[in-house]
Amino acid sequence: MRQAYDEQVESITADLVEVTRLVGSAMNRATQALLDADLHLAEAVIDFDAKVDILTSGIDERCFELIALQPDPADLQVLLGAMRISSSLERMGDLAEHVAKQARMRHPRVAAPQAVRGTFAEMGGLAEAIVSKTGSVIATKDVSLCVDIARHDEEMDRLHRELFTIVLSPAWKYGVEEAIDVTLLSRFYERYADHAVSVSKRVVTIVTGEPYVAVSLTN
Amino acid sequence: MRQAYDEQVESITADLVEVTRLVGSAMNRATQALLDADLHLAEAVIDFDAKVDILTSGIDERCFELIALQPDPADLQVLLGAMRISSSLERMGDLAEHVAKQARMRHPRVAAPQAVRGTFAEMGGLAEAIVSKTGSVIATKDVSLCVDIARHDEEMDRLHRELFTIVLSPAWKYGVEEAIDVTLLSRFYERYADHAVSVSKRVVTIVTGEPYVAVSLTN
Repeated sequence: MRQAYDEQVESITADLVEVTRLVGSAMNRATQALLDADLHLAEAVIDFDAKVDILTSGIDERCFELIALQPDPADLQVLLGAMRISSSLERMGDLAEHVAKQARMRHPRVAAPQAVRGTFAEMGGLAEAIVSKTGSVIATKDVSLCVDIARHDEEMDRLHRELFTIVLSPAWKYGVEEAIDVTLLSRFYERYADHAVSVSKRVVTIVTGEPYVAVSLTN
Repeated sequence: MRQAYDEQVESITADLVEVTRLVGSAMNRATQALLDADLHLAEAVIDFDAKVDILTSGIDERCFELIALQPDPADLQVLLGAMRISSSLERMGDLAEHVAKQARMRHPRVAAPQAVRGTFAEMGGLAEAIVSKTGSVIATKDVSLCVDIARHDEEMDRLHRELFTIVLSPAWKYGVEEAIDVTLLSRFYERYADHAVSVSKRVVTIVTGEPYVAVSLTN
């Protein structure tokens, strides 16, 4: 009984890690689609999000079934945590999709003008690093990685602010439409990182056994 | 035993309704602070969000305690639904706070230029209508109200698109900074309505007893 239960929790954990890989790949390809104004790649990312939704729904369903078996409080905390993590990851998939949709909407123009290309490339790199470490935290429960994740998130916030400075500087030679694109895109990356931080904090509450709601997960 | 349990679920439901009232009032005052560039009101809304966070954390904690008492699957569904609703409402509080922060950042300038004042006033009115009906859905389980909520959400989406048209029209006489403000503010209202829709759909899954994850709640 206990062994069957542990195997199911392990399989849920493996699926959560798999979802971090999928939403990481989605954001990676969305960034590429954005920088190259690659319509086909953008559409592939948009279609791909359904896969993330199916996987996260499946995780929720299995968590529900295990919770219905009336686990003890420690196991319950793990399962409720897994459901919240699944929900954050699903939202990260949506945000990658949003980036791809913005790239598609402006095609054949590049939604990220030349002046901010480098910054978005950096944001894409950070998103990749942060989601990959988030996957490792879930897989290994090595919460020391949360320090790296928090540092990446701070760097993402810095780039987010930097983009506002660029768009508002007298040197900004593009129009209002480009400024709006940059604003929205930048927010999608920033929120993506926020959700990754939420996931890693959630793992901390599970590992340390802190009360379920004691860690603020909002940003 | 059953009576004590029912009383606790009732008290959780009452608190969820109370939170809809609080986040409704927060968005209402944030809109006022935005339209009047009222610094004191903006700061009051920002401080107020801590109250929402405390209330939603308390709801989560009580749900967790009840789930730990190993309820049957139907009760479990209600409690898990309440936790998700609490999480959406908490996020709605954050979005009201974001509007207030934008108002504060631009003070003494009005963050919503004259040309879009009317649209933001409308968005504020819609936000108020949608959150008030969401509170009624939670309180009464009258899911027929979801039709109204969906209609309000569509209207919010229409205003969101309308703002892009205004900002991008040749008649837009303001600068890039104002365009960015409008873009972000508009997104906060649109997301606020999205979360209200999620909450109302969640009540539907509880009332109809549909499988917990069968209704897509993402936007």
